[in-house]
Formats: sequence, C-alpha cells, structure tokens
Amino acid sequence: MGYPFAHRQRVRFGETDLQGVVYYANYLLFAEVGRMAYLRSLGVDYRRLLDDGLDFTIGEASVRYRAPLRFDDEFDIRVRVADIRRSSWVFEYAFDRADGLHCAEGSTLQVLLDRATNRPTRISPLLRDALERAKAG
Amino acid sequence: MGYPFAHRQRVRFGETDLQGVVYYANYLLFAEVGRMAYLRSLGVDYRRLLDDGLDFTIGEASVRYRAPLRFDDEFDIRVRVADIRRSSWVFEYAFDRADGLHCAEGSTLQVLLDRATNRPTRISPLLRDALERAKAG
Amino acid sequence: MGYPFAHRQRVRFGETDLQGVVYYANYLLFAEVGRMAYLRSLGVDYRRLLDDGLDFTIGEASVRYRAPLRFDDEFDIRVRVADIRRSSWVFEYAFDRADGLHCAEGSTLQVLLDRATNRPTRISPLLRDALERAKAG
Amino acid sequence: MGYPFAHRQRVRFGETDLQGVVYYANYLLFAEVGRMAYLRSLGVDYRRLLDDGLDFTIGEASVRYRAPLRFDDEFDIRVRVADIRRSSWVFEYAFDRADGLHCAEGSTLQVLLDRATNRPTRISPLLRDALERAKAG
Repeated sequence: MGYPFAHRQRVRFGETDLQGVVYYANYLLFAEVGRMAYLRSLGVDYRRLLDDGLDFTIGEASVRYRAPLRFDDEFDIRVRVADIRRSSWVFEYAFDRADGLHCAEGSTLQVLLDRATNRPTRISPLLRDALERAKAG
Repeated sequence: MGYPFAHRQRVRFGETDLQGVVYYANYLLFAEVGRMAYLRSLGVDYRRLLDDGLDFTIGEASVRYRAPLRFDDEFDIRVRVADIRRSSWVFEYAFDRADGLHCAEGSTLQVLLDRATNRPTRISPLLRDALERAKAG
Repeated sequence: MGYPFAHRQRVRFGETDLQGVVYYANYLLFAEVGRMAYLRSLGVDYRRLLDDGLDFTIGEASVRYRAPLRFDDEFDIRVRVADIRRSSWVFEYAFDRADGLHCAEGSTLQVLLDRATNRPTRISPLLRDALERAKAG
Repeated sequence: MGYPFAHRQRVRFGETDLQGVVYYANYLLFAEVGRMAYLRSLGVDYRRLLDDGLDFTIGEASVRYRAPLRFDDEFDIRVRVADIRRSSWVFEYAFDRADGLHCAEGSTLQVLLDRATNRPTRISPLLRDALERAKAG
C-alpha cells in the first residue's frame, strides 16, 4: 500500500532544535500541512466546510521517528486515507527526505464536528465520497 | 527607568534552534507571555476585554539581541508601559537571564480594536487608568 | 496508577490556533516541558548527560485528545515512567486543566544515544536507578 | 525601490492564533524562510558557510503589521538587501498576500560570526560580492 499523494516542503531553520534536527513536535505540524494540501487536492475546501457549519478536530495523533530531517532538507509529506468511520477517519503519513530516506511515519484521527453543538456528526455524503475515492487510490 | 514587572520563565527545548540558542522569533512569543502576565497583574482580563467587544492587535514589534539564551536557562521577561496614545500604547521589554545577564530588549505597539468594526478605537477609561498607573510605576 | 509528578503551566496566546484552542502539536511541546521538569526533579541534568557523551532522542510519540485547553487556562502536565528497557524508556503524560478537567493523555519513547556513534546505548546505572525509583513512585 | 526576490508560501493552520490570523511572531519565521531562500538563490549556501567556520546571527529584527494573513492564504515573502557594513548587513522584507494586498514589512540585521571565537568578523569577499550584486538588483 503506497501513498497516492505527496507534498514537498523544505525544513525551516526555526523548525530545528539544539540537536541540529527537526524538533519532534513539528512532524505533527508537517502532518497538518500535508493533510490540508491533500484535502485541497481532493476538492475539499476547509473554509467551505466551516461555512457549512462543520469543522474537524484531531482525536488522536502519533508519530514514529526513524531518521532525522535537518535544516534545508527537502522532504515529502506523503498522505493516505486509512479507516473511514461514521464521524471520523484516519490519515496516515510518511515523511521522506527528497532523496528517498524514510524519516518518520504517523497517523491522525480526524473527527467531524457540528459547529453549533461542537459534537461529532456524521460525515456528509460529499466528504465521504471524496475520502472513499482517495482511499481507493 | 527600570521595569516594574518581571515574569520568570525557563527556556524550553523546542524553543532552541540548531545554533543551540533560543530561536530569534521566540522573543516575540516571550514578549506576549510577559505582557499578558503584566496585564493580568494590572487587573486587565483579556477575556473580559473580548466580552466587552474589544480586542487588541500588534501594530509594530522589534527586538534587539545582545546575548543568547540557551535551553533550560531561567530568565525574566521584564515589561513596562511607555507611550500611551489615543487608541494604542507601547510596551517595552527586557529579557534577562536569571543571573542578571541582559540578553535582549524589545518593544510592541498595541492597538485597541472595536471587534464589531475591526478598527482602532479609543482606549476606555478603565484600561487607560490601568496603563497610566502602570506607567507611573 | 496515578502520576507522581505535575508541572503547572499557563496556555500562551501563540499556542492557540484559529479554532480558539491549543494547537494539537503543542501537546508534544508540553510533554517535553513536563518530562524535562520531571527529569530535573529526579536529579537528572540534561546538560550533564550531554557532557557525559550521551543524549536521548524521541523514538515514538502519541497523544489522545479529550477536551480542549484555551488561552490563559492553567493546566498541569502530569508525568510518570512506564516501561524501562535496555536503552529506552517510556514516559506517560496526562494534560489536565487546573480545575481537574482531563484534556489529553500521551506517551513518548526516549532512546538513549551515545553521542560519539549516534546509536542507542545501554541506560547507565545512575539513570536507570533514577527511572526505577520514579517508576516505583 | 522594489524587491528583486519573492518566495511564495501558504499559511499553515498551526501558524494562526485564536484571533483567526497569523500569530505576530510568525512573521519573523517567514522572514527567515525568505532570506534563506534568497541567499540560496544568490549562491550562498548556509551549510558551506558553517563548514568555512562562519555563521551569522540576528542582531535586530522588526516588523510593522498592516493587514492580517489568514489560514490557507498564499503570500509572497519579498526580500532585498539594504545596508551592507563591515561585519553585518540588513535585509528588508515585504509580506504580501498573493492577490497583492500588502500585509506587513520588516527588517533584520545579520551579523557574521567567526565560529571559533563566536565574535563578529569581516564579511568575506565572496559573500560581500553576492550581497552587493543582490543590492544592485
């Protein structure tokens, strides 16, 4: 199972720490950048989602670190859809240096919210369709 | 002219960069932490400000760097009120390591906003009073 | 099984996002602040570790989000030692608002490194002793 | 006097704050991204600089905020060289939304350091030449 989507970024100076490598929390920032780019490419517009009275929040997040990224490294944030449930779905990520070195992988659970109640709500047919198509590759 | 207020913090690992010192943008984060603590000590509650239909934004910010702060260093964010204008005021800062080493100084211009119009609005008598008292030391 | 250690912090403005709550990646920043404070309280000095030719890196990290923290909220970062292995150990965290609301929990795997080789190395007797005592509570 | 260089970026979710706009300190992060991209385009390689026993630090930084950037906005970080001195030089920045709205401007003072002594050192002929050419546009 590969990743159908990749979004290239370059490590910023401010994303490193005194160990000379990317600070571990920033992989969750990279995951956000990747999934927002992926959603955009799937035709899912976050601002329209908000206008439709919806939002999503992260319920769980995890990262497994394999090799460090360093300042100025170019890298790809790869994203794929894993589980799709009633009101939530899982994104999986790979963080790979541009020369192919696999640096980390991770996952996040997105929970769709009704903004009026701030409670989980059923994934709309349009969003479900976009996620199903993405998952099918 | 000294600083009537100091708020002690400790440098976090994630605030450093590959040079082994605090990343330069984080001094503006420290300034925010210092001014919010100072406003709190002056009896100015940011959330009440919001409830009153007000907000403030930063119009200008500057920092002059003298000596680096490093991971785990304890340091004081010193704050004082400088100019108070019609709808804005200036905070000045000193960032001093706990042993007294002066590491940086800076300033920010706060502009009071009417949340309904998102435009500058006259500083309310209550807030002006708090700032004037703070400035008088 | 409770948490023997708590480190109180206050949510900074810059730690929030446009949803008005703490940005999800910042819980890993909080975890770092908590574990460094815990290690300090156990007598483990990170800078001495470096001087001894050692360092540690994070091998895995995860967070489960339950309720949001907001700007200016005071909260406790609770930390405890879970598994201790040959060259790695697990910290577990709870992030609780000062009034007791449980907001998130998480874990990180620390891997001890030999700085000369940058490879995992056996936990030294001194560090193992500190971790074992911490685990025993 | 225009800006000879622009580097396009997109606002990340994690760069916003509870006011729904880019957190003010992040403009210094953007400035870093812009100047590193500019230096790269001028043929100045930061890692080679380090290998040559040099480094640079920021001596001063300032930003003036005009209009907010919001999540998902595309924007250009424009950079130009201003003053070039014995061991330091000034970069000036404009932060403009992709549709042309001017959002902020700023400046940073870079100080060249000898890594052996950690003290300011004369700008090397090669670097001076690159900066002079950049300034001449």
